[in-house]
Amino acid sequence: MEPTGVEPIKTLAMRLSGFPGIGMKTALRLAYHVLEMSEESARGLAEAIINAKEKIHLCKRCGAYTDSELCSVCSDKTRDHSLVCVVAEPKDVLSMERMREYKGVYHVLGGTISPIDGVGPNDLRIKELSQRVDDEHILEVVIATNPDVEGEATSSYIVRLLKPKGIRITRIAHGIPMGGNLEYIDEMTLYKAIEGRRDI
Amino acid sequence: MEPTGVEPIKTLAMRLSGFPGIGMKTALRLAYHVLEMSEESARGLAEAIINAKEKIHLCKRCGAYTDSELCSVCSDKTRDHSLVCVVAEPKDVLSMERMREYKGVYHVLGGTISPIDGVGPNDLRIKELSQRVDDEHILEVVIATNPDVEGEATSSYIVRLLKPKGIRITRIAHGIPMGGNLEYIDEMTLYKAIEGRRDI
Repeated sequence: MEPTGVEPIKTLAMRLSGFPGIGMKTALRLAYHVLEMSEESARGLAEAIINAKEKIHLCKRCGAYTDSELCSVCSDKTRDHSLVCVVAEPKDVLSMERMREYKGVYHVLGGTISPIDGVGPNDLRIKELSQRVDDEHILEVVIATNPDVEGEATSSYIVRLLKPKGIRITRIAHGIPMGGNLEYIDEMTLYKAIEGRRDI
Repeated sequence: MEPTGVEPIKTLAMRLSGFPGIGMKTALRLAYHVLEMSEESARGLAEAIINAKEKIHLCKRCGAYTDSELCSVCSDKTRDHSLVCVVAEPKDVLSMERMREYKGVYHVLGGTISPIDGVGPNDLRIKELSQRVDDEHILEVVIATNPDVEGEATSSYIVRLLKPKGIRITRIAHGIPMGGNLEYIDEMTLYKAIEGRRDI
């Protein structure tokens, strides 16, 4: 759908419709909101976009988003640096941190192995993970890639690579989500839940 | 919910969560998308925001959004300038134009009469409408405010004001929307649909 209207509104709506989950109709609604904003708010939003893009890069050690050389987790001496959680994307670190219970550090792969998209192990920060296990005093690696085909393949690859190094390698648990209902849970999740059952 | 993460991401997410219908979770998702954008796209988006805000103002004659002195409708000689459609907001003009069938011009009130919000007739561009009817060769005014309490009150006020001028004053039709289903239509709409029935 082509937005009707004046050129600068069209242009803005087109740009906004590039966001995930934002169609042209929502994009137009957002563009109108920009017009109704104060001059100051609009300028603040534009600056926040530029700022985020310019200041944020990946942590030299773990690959998470940061505005310094090392991210706040890697530079935190009170975290357990012998426990490394492996995630696919930088934003996954923020999801994990939201939980506030994990006390280890991270390693971000920058994606998952996906032959269809032409992503192999060498396109990910897997070598760097292996190097960290060799160089740093790491006792356990917990793999937290998503439980889909690519995530599982990536997990298997890492397990095979790190197993010979004699450290503990774990995978986050899969099962019924809290508040979930057995009636609506798919068979695969149910199977994982039974398989991963624990003594109480 | 406070967004976890690095300062510039937080700031951007906070700004984005000010948009209508965008909660903090969606705002964070959008902020991550900005980080994944190319430098050029992020800069383009920021510029589009500033640009829209700076270049767009209200048409001197009708009050619609425009980037020139008169909007594209008001300055179009092929439109019927004797037929004026009265709408509440500048964005309503774009909704009407999307239909591509209306050949008249517009008058934007800049809101609706709403005693609760302290908006009276003098806060709207109603005087300007009356003036246009006096100055321009206007034969019909069609009132297209929303069919809610404020829209109806505004419509009544305008009818009372313009009636003595002897021009034709009409209201857009209310009824069953196309594709609508009698079973799910509210009584008020059904009443309007019966009341406004036409010979076929």
